[in-house]
Amino acid sequence: MSEQNLPTQENAMGLVFTEWFPESTGLSFRIVQTIESAQSPLQMIELYETETHGKLLVMDGCVMLTERDEVAYHEMIVHVPLLSHPNPKRVLVIGGGDGGTLREVVRHPSVELARQVEIDGEVVRICKEHLPKIAAAYDNPKVDLIIGDGIEHVKTAPDGSYDIVLIDSTDPFGPALGLFGEEFYRNVDRILADDGIMVCQAESAWYNMPMLKVIVETLQKIFPVVKTFSSQIPVYPSGTWSFGYASKGIDPVADVDQERAEPIEEGGQYYNRDLHKAAFAQPSFVKRELGL
Amino acid sequence: MSEQNLPTQENAMGLVFTEWFPESTGLSFRIVQTIESAQSPLQMIELYETETHGKLLVMDGCVMLTERDEVAYHEMIVHVPLLSHPNPKRVLVIGGGDGGTLREVVRHPSVELARQVEIDGEVVRICKEHLPKIAAAYDNPKVDLIIGDGIEHVKTAPDGSYDIVLIDSTDPFGPALGLFGEEFYRNVDRILADDGIMVCQAESAWYNMPMLKVIVETLQKIFPVVKTFSSQIPVYPSGTWSFGYASKGIDPVADVDQERAEPIEEGGQYYNRDLHKAAFAQPSFVKRELGL
Repeated sequence: MSEQNLPTQENAMGLVFTEWFPESTGLSFRIVQTIESAQSPLQMIELYETETHGKLLVMDGCVMLTERDEVAYHEMIVHVPLLSHPNPKRVLVIGGGDGGTLREVVRHPSVELARQVEIDGEVVRICKEHLPKIAAAYDNPKVDLIIGDGIEHVKTAPDGSYDIVLIDSTDPFGPALGLFGEEFYRNVDRILADDGIMVCQAESAWYNMPMLKVIVETLQKIFPVVKTFSSQIPVYPSGTWSFGYASKGIDPVADVDQERAEPIEEGGQYYNRDLHKAAFAQPSFVKRELGL
Repeated sequence: MSEQNLPTQENAMGLVFTEWFPESTGLSFRIVQTIESAQSPLQMIELYETETHGKLLVMDGCVMLTERDEVAYHEMIVHVPLLSHPNPKRVLVIGGGDGGTLREVVRHPSVELARQVEIDGEVVRICKEHLPKIAAAYDNPKVDLIIGDGIEHVKTAPDGSYDIVLIDSTDPFGPALGLFGEEFYRNVDRILADDGIMVCQAESAWYNMPMLKVIVETLQKIFPVVKTFSSQIPVYPSGTWSFGYASKGIDPVADVDQERAEPIEEGGQYYNRDLHKAAFAQPSFVKRELGL
């Protein structure tokens, strides 16, 4: 937790939760009530009912999601890689305990296995209980939930055993730190099939360029195709979030298969094929910093 | 001013300025000092030195810009229309008293006249004095600054007298309200040449869809080509801001002239041709609401 982040406070607005981003701004929500406040062995998990954003999930003082805009994150981290791949069958999600990423993965008819390795069972428990529209896929027969260490899983999984790996982690502190290192990404590369694709959340280009740069440079040592794409996430620092994209050859901005994309678009609220391509266009300062 | 917006407050973070967005979140900045706090006849104008975003300009309690990210707004409101137009010579800016829009307009060699009609001379005075990198073009010989009412100006300007009209206004309250109405847009249409283009700031699709919808529907009554595009603006509500684009025929996403675009890109920090096209791709919920 950032030392600067204050717990909820009473002020003239009533009860307010604020996340202060390092070297940046603070984002506040008006709180109606605290639903859960649980210290798991790994992190502090808080769930609030807000006045304007539905439920708000906070981990170690950082906003993870709100019900109002979670679709933007979950649709983009999933549909960009799964619709870039010709036939994704075996999908691994590291982290993502809220279940939103899994919910989008199982919407793809080609998927036979949606395996999630989440390190903190408390997150899954709280989200299944209080966020049923997000944690909606845990009973799906395609889903295999493992409560365990994602770093260990990618070390021991067989070569070429996944078509897609999605790193839906918290920020690069505490339990998630090892999910941003070279050894981890080398194992991801090894367990991906020859047409495999990896996507990871990769921080804000406005407020954490050094971290985004490290992620891109590390991926470039390992994968022949490395790009970044972004999504509007109003409740994350700067409102625009970056994702790292790496593959053994598949270009994410080639034309997407219309027949597979249409039902995904029609059943969703954020992703569409125009936005899929557009998300890879980056501001000049980002292109220059990343050399992409 | 929103009644909910508090003045700067001392708390455990030190001196903090917070803008609470209606029906939404609050965004806070750590304040080093107040540089100006002036009540003009039209509005309250405040200029702060922040810890992390350089200077912060606030009008009637709403964040107008910070030095850290103003380029994203100013480059996009200008270069998208001016590089969509084949030969923009006569440009009218309504509002934009900070000067950032003018600064980008005069970078186009084709521009012969950059006329700005700003209703509040105090804004221009404060920005010339304290924000010289933004209010950088007021001495340029192409610039004609009129302190006056933009609504009156578009009523009385001759037919077809501008190639481009940019509405760089505050939010649709108080002095800016008339800049969002049908009569105003009909006059903008009248004073534009046959290949004319108009761009206006158009609020957040996440947090003020009703206003964005009214703007688009009003423009559609008048102009044959109406679209919206967006820019990342970390210090505006939701972090993504919409602009309305209207023309008498010019499509903004056709190929942009490379020879004119290159020096604009090289001398800037945000705009590039890929982003120009990408900015018109909208999330599905926006496309559905706007019917675009």
